Amino acid sequence: MDFGSDNRSGVAPEIMAALQTAATGTAASYGADDWTARIEKKFCDVFEKDVAVFLTGTGTAANALALASFAPPHSAILCHEESHIHVSECGAPEFFTHGAKLAALPGENGKLHAERVEAAIRFWKAGRDHRPYPSLLSLTQLSEAGTVYRPAELEALTAVAKEAGMAVHMDGARFANAVAALGQSPAEASWKAGIDVLSFGATKNGAMGVEAVIFFDPEKAGDFTRRRKRAGQLFSKSRFLAAQMEAYLEDGLWLRLAAQANAMAARLAEGLTAKGARLLYPVEGNEVFVFLTEDQRRALSEGGAVFLEWDLPDGSSAARFVTSFAAADADVDAALALL
Amino acid sequence: MDFGSDNRSGVAPEIMAALQTAATGTAASYGADDWTARIEKKFCDVFEKDVAVFLTGTGTAANALALASFAPPHSAILCHEESHIHVSECGAPEFFTHGAKLAALPGENGKLHAERVEAAIRFWKAGRDHRPYPSLLSLTQLSEAGTVYRPAELEALTAVAKEAGMAVHMDGARFANAVAALGQSPAEASWKAGIDVLSFGATKNGAMGVEAVIFFDPEKAGDFTRRRKRAGQLFSKSRFLAAQMEAYLEDGLWLRLAAQANAMAARLAEGLTAKGARLLYPVEGNEVFVFLTEDQRRALSEGGAVFLEWDLPDGSSAARFVTSFAAADADVDAALALL
Amino acid sequence: MDFGSDNRSGVAPEIMAALQTAATGTAASYGADDWTARIEKKFCDVFEKDVAVFLTGTGTAANALALASFAPPHSAILCHEESHIHVSECGAPEFFTHGAKLAALPGENGKLHAERVEAAIRFWKAGRDHRPYPSLLSLTQLSEAGTVYRPAELEALTAVAKEAGMAVHMDGARFANAVAALGQSPAEASWKAGIDVLSFGATKNGAMGVEAVIFFDPEKAGDFTRRRKRAGQLFSKSRFLAAQMEAYLEDGLWLRLAAQANAMAARLAEGLTAKGARLLYPVEGNEVFVFLTEDQRRALSEGGAVFLEWDLPDGSSAARFVTSFAAADADVDAALALL
Amino acid sequence: MDFGSDNRSGVAPEIMAALQTAATGTAASYGADDWTARIEKKFCDVFEKDVAVFLTGTGTAANALALASFAPPHSAILCHEESHIHVSECGAPEFFTHGAKLAALPGENGKLHAERVEAAIRFWKAGRDHRPYPSLLSLTQLSEAGTVYRPAELEALTAVAKEAGMAVHMDGARFANAVAALGQSPAEASWKAGIDVLSFGATKNGAMGVEAVIFFDPEKAGDFTRRRKRAGQLFSKSRFLAAQMEAYLEDGLWLRLAAQANAMAARLAEGLTAKGARLLYPVEGNEVFVFLTEDQRRALSEGGAVFLEWDLPDGSSAARFVTSFAAADADVDAALALL
Repeated sequence: MDFGSDNRSGVAPEIMAALQTAATGTAASYGADDWTARIEKKFCDVFEKDVAVFLTGTGTAANALALASFAPPHSAILCHEESHIHVSECGAPEFFTHGAKLAALPGENGKLHAERVEAAIRFWKAGRDHRPYPSLLSLTQLSEAGTVYRPAELEALTAVAKEAGMAVHMDGARFANAVAALGQSPAEASWKAGIDVLSFGATKNGAMGVEAVIFFDPEKAGDFTRRRKRAGQLFSKSRFLAAQMEAYLEDGLWLRLAAQANAMAARLAEGLTAKGARLLYPVEGNEVFVFLTEDQRRALSEGGAVFLEWDLPDGSSAARFVTSFAAADADVDAALALL
Repeated sequence: MDFGSDNRSGVAPEIMAALQTAATGTAASYGADDWTARIEKKFCDVFEKDVAVFLTGTGTAANALALASFAPPHSAILCHEESHIHVSECGAPEFFTHGAKLAALPGENGKLHAERVEAAIRFWKAGRDHRPYPSLLSLTQLSEAGTVYRPAELEALTAVAKEAGMAVHMDGARFANAVAALGQSPAEASWKAGIDVLSFGATKNGAMGVEAVIFFDPEKAGDFTRRRKRAGQLFSKSRFLAAQMEAYLEDGLWLRLAAQANAMAARLAEGLTAKGARLLYPVEGNEVFVFLTEDQRRALSEGGAVFLEWDLPDGSSAARFVTSFAAADADVDAALALL
Repeated sequence: MDFGSDNRSGVAPEIMAALQTAATGTAASYGADDWTARIEKKFCDVFEKDVAVFLTGTGTAANALALASFAPPHSAILCHEESHIHVSECGAPEFFTHGAKLAALPGENGKLHAERVEAAIRFWKAGRDHRPYPSLLSLTQLSEAGTVYRPAELEALTAVAKEAGMAVHMDGARFANAVAALGQSPAEASWKAGIDVLSFGATKNGAMGVEAVIFFDPEKAGDFTRRRKRAGQLFSKSRFLAAQMEAYLEDGLWLRLAAQANAMAARLAEGLTAKGARLLYPVEGNEVFVFLTEDQRRALSEGGAVFLEWDLPDGSSAARFVTSFAAADADVDAALALL
Repeated sequence: MDFGSDNRSGVAPEIMAALQTAATGTAASYGADDWTARIEKKFCDVFEKDVAVFLTGTGTAANALALASFAPPHSAILCHEESHIHVSECGAPEFFTHGAKLAALPGENGKLHAERVEAAIRFWKAGRDHRPYPSLLSLTQLSEAGTVYRPAELEALTAVAKEAGMAVHMDGARFANAVAALGQSPAEASWKAGIDVLSFGATKNGAMGVEAVIFFDPEKAGDFTRRRKRAGQLFSKSRFLAAQMEAYLEDGLWLRLAAQANAMAARLAEGLTAKGARLLYPVEGNEVFVFLTEDQRRALSEGGAVFLEWDLPDGSSAARFVTSFAAADADVDAALALL
């Protein structure tokens, strides 16, 4: 009954097995190994396109390195005011970009809207050399509110950015959950919708610790390998990052894991609303934000169910439940039974 | 009839004379000269306190260096969303602080309000190591809207910051205009109201190009001299910065110049409202924001009056007039006569 | 017969088993897990002292974060001109310190000498605010040449640094090999010899990917947790870093692994010299630098032995062999048999 | 008798007059003024080429901004180990480049030599993504030792850099003295010899405080205006920088001032050697490095002659005399008479 976060989960058995297999023998270091070569090819298959792929150890590093590849220090990155890159990475994007400005915008249900982004672009563009110019738009899919950008929303947003000469980044820490929810292909959910660079998460969805930065135009990767090394994100024994990713992508494991997490969130949301609880946001992936009574909170906590207090800007708070690949019907039902 | 900005003005004759006097003979370089020693003492007199003073060539440098002295890279600086440091310095604060986050807040009439600041502090403090913590509050006096923080407003704001363990910076590019408007002593308008570090402007108010960073607790200056050198702001012939500042402070010249600028803004505002124009903000210093009709704009422009189009967030715009120390009744009256 | 580098080795079985054990079930994320709590205590035991310990994913990150904790941007870090931090981290120390200067010094056998360091300190101190002042001395143990600083050498170096008010960092990517070679206690090899902060390596010596930064005065850690998060080095599933480290430290495994690696290097060096090859540096840990004839190189390469071409400043080159924990007598003997 | 440094001199009367003229009336701010437009054109004439020109307030800023335009953070700048950018700018190049490495090289008489630069390029290029790659070569003309690179020396050095795909920067804080000494045209002394970007000094040679960064291929200036603003080097009253520069370039004033300074250095050097003093470096511009006896030092100091103690790497020291545009025969003779 641990719904504190999907990053509290362990490692999927298939991934653990791949690590075990990779553990013996010697291999070229710093990414010159066979595992890395294979996943580079595998990602091209998954996205139906020649892509440039680079692995990192954490999602913060993946995001910050991706942003730094497109946003010069004297530019601005437009993002949602609740986005992880703005709120929860202790300024990593500012660090890796050498001080680009995160221009935060409001938006309902954790999502940005095209008109608001357009107005912000106009504002930041209006200042000649005095204002940081808008270089990059960053979208989070699943959003921080657990909601999913629909194809038409994404296309409207990326169109506005392209029109302004900006690139578009997707923070896909929960990209798997979004793809599983949308029923689209990975290609449709990313570059076909106008995304230039994707932080492709795996850790929250069953890996031990690996994320990928994917450039849909390999030319745009530029000096990424140097940036990554300089940031302390080039692992000497890179095979162990690649081995995780290989198992994760193998036979659609990543989408099966995400589908399970999503199903458990739906089950939980249904159960909670049946108990009279009100949802804060629509449940579209593996996150449930819900208003609970004091009694409900107490019953859950005392019964051993783990969830997060989520502070709302107005000073009130909601409860956040995140379901992982490892959650089972029994976990959800046990939690619901406490109410 | 040039009301484009006070930084379009020239140099006050007293300041120009001081430069002329300083121009001959040799002097110790890099701030070891007698002029610098004298103004260091002079500032202590002006502020009735032992202060640490450092000169810079531009206001952007003064602000950015002052901010960097208090805000570590992994922290946040709370400021108004229209503040110069956030909007108009091409990210200099982010550059000099090595990537601190400017957490921008809304507020009427260009001013921050204590409750909103308090809520923001709570938000940024809530994230353990994940959110940049709030290290510094930056206030602009005159504000970007030409308004003045009243003593009680300042005290409420600095109290909230102190309570949270934060320092308070004042961007005083137009500090002289504020002091002249408030009729307070410089001490009352700064450290006695809880300000820790002040960017003390002179350039907009009659100098050629010099600003001062003033630490009201000299201990807090820390490594400022190294930061300044490293930022390319230690002038080899520093006597020419200090000579300007010496003349500026001599016999209250700075306040006389500011009072003249303020009086001209009042005269202009009165005349404009008499012509039926509506003010956007109260006119409290040397800036007038006003809604003009198309006919009024045309009449002014064709008659040779210079002012700035000021974009408003909602897409509309107002006209901004700034009066300088060098503006005279005749300039104002000539502009008004065009309407 | 892979002597390309110790980071080409796999994972020690004891460490792999610990990962397997940790793989199931949920755990608090971001370092709030039990594994992390245990290794924090364990390191205090190993070093016979209250220490502050932080895990990172790579050695470059460990070094750069450790350096940044002591070296302000406007200061200089004294280091060997062949040191990894200067030559082989693509500027990570400059990135993490926000631009501190690496002041590189020569020294025989990969080691710095106290007199030379003292002269450099004098030089960098002589410039008031104009020169970056020397804040930190960084020593590599094993050195880049595979040699070991003797206790007296270390003490002379750290005494010079302390006298100048500087802190001392040790890059211990191969600290285990040095301790095994010296026969000292970890405490004697570090803080008792004047080291303030240690990059404690595990990856090259049998871990999958984990290093520790150890502050011998916990107070000095300062904002390390924020720096680490900001640098993308706070792993959400931190238990998997801690689990590796726990197994590594358990029952002295780390020293047994290192002793094996060292023994294999000694065996290899002895065999090579018996074949008439000349050593470039004394073999004191798990690295062998040796001059080979063209025939010898060819015989080894064609026979499948892997080693590295090591460029020398004068344009010539030597061969570098590194033995890992996983190397066995048979590997060494098979390589020697090729000659 | 003040030979402490040329930056201890005052302002040339022609330049002071230009400032006085510019002091009244309003003008467009931030470089949109007529003075700036005129000097942009004037520099094209002086260098017989379309160039992009940007003014800064200090030489440190000019150098650091010029370097940052060519050297990415993950690259290395090759420079002389005694160069101002390496030793005397408190790390400004590292700050403005966001952490590029200054790879310092030795060289006789303050000058770099092509073979040594070539070897360094080979070294830094050899490390794939692990070593910062060499992006920029920086030469100082006059060198820090007061010597002048001859045309053939410059050409050999820039050829080596171009061959490696590197750009070449010239720190011309005393460019005027070098051009006056060489008897070449400014074009021959810069872009015709392979220089890509020049820090063109004026402050040491009679200006109050202004330097120019000159890109010989205007395309290469890139985002310079944003970088300059962000660095706090865009002066609101830019006309006062441009007015200085206009007077400085008018009718060859800059070369007349430099010729006078050089002549005084020659006179001083001749006199000193006649008194038996030994020169440390050949005197080719306006600097004299000389070994003095204790008696000579005392006689000079007690007589009121100002000069600098210059520390030598071996712990001994020499005396440095710098002559400025304002030095006269009588100053030199008076100093010599003290011996």
